Amino acid sequence: MTFRSTLLLIAVGACLAQTPAELSNDATVRAAMEAAKRNEPSILELQARLCEIPAPPFQEAVRGQELKRLFQELGLRDVRIDAAGNVIGVRPGKAARPNLVFAAHLDTVFPEGTNVKVTREGDILKAPGIGDDCRGLAVMLAVIRALNDSHVETPGTITFVADVGEEGLGDLRGMKSLFFDSLKGQIDKFVSVDGTGLGITHIGVGSNRYKVTFKGPGGHSYGAFGMANPIQAMGRAIAKIDALQVPRQPKTTFNVGRVGGGTSINAIPFEAWMEVDMRSADPAALQAVAEENARWNNRGPVSASAELVGVRPAGQTSKDSPIVQTAIAVSRALEIEEVLREGSTDSNVPMNLKIPAITISGGGVGTGAHSLNETFDTRDSWRGTQRALLLAIALAR
Amino acid sequence: MTFRSTLLLIAVGACLAQTPAELSNDATVRAAMEAAKRNEPSILELQARLCEIPAPPFQEAVRGQELKRLFQELGLRDVRIDAAGNVIGVRPGKAARPNLVFAAHLDTVFPEGTNVKVTREGDILKAPGIGDDCRGLAVMLAVIRALNDSHVETPGTITFVADVGEEGLGDLRGMKSLFFDSLKGQIDKFVSVDGTGLGITHIGVGSNRYKVTFKGPGGHSYGAFGMANPIQAMGRAIAKIDALQVPRQPKTTFNVGRVGGGTSINAIPFEAWMEVDMRSADPAALQAVAEENARWNNRGPVSASAELVGVRPAGQTSKDSPIVQTAIAVSRALEIEEVLREGSTDSNVPMNLKIPAITISGGGVGTGAHSLNETFDTRDSWRGTQRALLLAIALAR
Repeated sequence: MTFRSTLLLIAVGACLAQTPAELSNDATVRAAMEAAKRNEPSILELQARLCEIPAPPFQEAVRGQELKRLFQELGLRDVRIDAAGNVIGVRPGKAARPNLVFAAHLDTVFPEGTNVKVTREGDILKAPGIGDDCRGLAVMLAVIRALNDSHVETPGTITFVADVGEEGLGDLRGMKSLFFDSLKGQIDKFVSVDGTGLGITHIGVGSNRYKVTFKGPGGHSYGAFGMANPIQAMGRAIAKIDALQVPRQPKTTFNVGRVGGGTSINAIPFEAWMEVDMRSADPAALQAVAEENARWNNRGPVSASAELVGVRPAGQTSKDSPIVQTAIAVSRALEIEEVLREGSTDSNVPMNLKIPAITISGGGVGTGAHSLNETFDTRDSWRGTQRALLLAIALAR
Repeated sequence: MTFRSTLLLIAVGACLAQTPAELSNDATVRAAMEAAKRNEPSILELQARLCEIPAPPFQEAVRGQELKRLFQELGLRDVRIDAAGNVIGVRPGKAARPNLVFAAHLDTVFPEGTNVKVTREGDILKAPGIGDDCRGLAVMLAVIRALNDSHVETPGTITFVADVGEEGLGDLRGMKSLFFDSLKGQIDKFVSVDGTGLGITHIGVGSNRYKVTFKGPGGHSYGAFGMANPIQAMGRAIAKIDALQVPRQPKTTFNVGRVGGGTSINAIPFEAWMEVDMRSADPAALQAVAEENARWNNRGPVSASAELVGVRPAGQTSKDSPIVQTAIAVSRALEIEEVLREGSTDSNVPMNLKIPAITISGGGVGTGAHSLNETFDTRDSWRGTQRALLLAIALAR
């Protein structure tokens, strides 16, 4: 932290809902901020190492065990893994409350067998998941380490959580478990660190996720030619979805993320399925099935059914709320131009419960999240770590 | 065999290219025909038992081993498995030539894990593959057994083959191995028994089989929304294929048999693929990709490439050829109304090489070939067995 930002922090202190003088004048806080910057190279090593432990959806356990070990090594208390698989560890403050939960997610979107070896080229780390969310995990660990290094004692308590089920069909089950079961009624504020950059997400975009299954009798591709084909009906449905026009404000999206079906190139399949993230998958599927059956009207129809496989609840934390204002003030103190965003993250669950919650980005610059070509530019990534640290200190009171 | 059909057979004999008198007057031939009818119940048991040995494409080995054992048990000579996995066994005649290859295919279209348990309801057997081609395998074994039971000695030799790679992406590799390698230059005539009913296939419909792969950068379904999506491009291509109008004569077909792609419901996929049986997959794919890239023109395009994964050579055996005329004469002798057909079978390979070849159906009545609901009605199925037997005797000279 430079002298100038220290001054700014003092100025900012006046805006914080929490006792600002304590925060900005505290030598231990300044020492922690310096530690965060100094530790960054080894934190980047840790980020790469965690990334190389595969964590496909529903298979976060191995990476989770490593987080548990690290939580214990860093001296957290009551380190445990809850029923959903969340790794939980407590850093007690002077009082048990307020209790700030500070989280990052363990899981990636990448299936078993994906090559997660991290390659380095200059300042760039490259691997699936390197940013989303190994950066979040690394920043969380960096925060604990910096607090420890300078012996920061917070007035309230911080509970650190490496959570499961943020991605894919995980359906936020980590967060649902945390808020409805393992830490039910014990969470006063929530911050998750997700991905790269320096954004602040305070609007949680809700979504429905469907698995749509198309079925038909199936048969011989030559002998039964003329029979309605579930894959071909699905193709029609996908083409319709692809042509949808959606509003820009509020940002509305859709995605056909996975497809499968069929047994053999020379068999009319009896089943096909797609996983779709959109408000409603029914109209496109039903229209496509009607078209398919009209196209081939002689040998048994196809049908479609949509199963709701995920609900990400919507919610938001007001821009004027203390938690967002604190995040803005902390960012400005560190000369970070705050960017308020909307997105779909772990914070959706507490936002929906009206518990103060935001998701912050972990610093650095990322490209290609959710793609095999994901990269993380480490230059000045310590700024994201410092911002997360100062925010944790500011909120744990 | 009834007296009437014996008389007919005598009449038919005059039409056969092979010495008909020997055939129709031979008491051993009549005895073999009676054995075929008498053995049918145990042959149907065998058909069901073979069906319950899974034989997915490229995984025919276990069923193949059982055929090898049965060939040996039935006294065939020089029983062996060739490099492709074809099970070969010889029943020598008075002379080594002509050599008739009499075949049925081992493989099914059904993937590993498919429930192949046979259920019986009255005369109906039900299981994936029960007709196609466990019926062919059973008829082939029935022919050997009937020949043995009545000590038929044929002038020429019959080589029995349980072959691999007829279905799916097998690409007729069993036949290609047989005709180009293991029995190269040693096959004078070819008959395969495939599926149910009483048809005679003498036109081999050729086809090309493609795997078309769509690729794009991939990314976050929300953050990168607006990026071209390979699955969605593929959906457009499938919808185009599905709308194709094809001629009825000559019968022209297409099929999108399998699809896959994507890693997560909330990731824009980086890859999708489809397996298509059609003359050319390029136009639909290229047009779809162009549309997809026009629809989403801002964040990296998708592309498509079609790989030729299978070529089933076309060919035909003239209706006037001795082998087809013999099949017609034999059918008429047994009061079977012959139906000449076109199709895509093991015979495509010899037909393409201009080696006399036909594929006959194995009797009984089948429904739902290549579907999980495949059934086989056993009533009068012995007629198919008798026809195959008499044809084998008539051609092995």
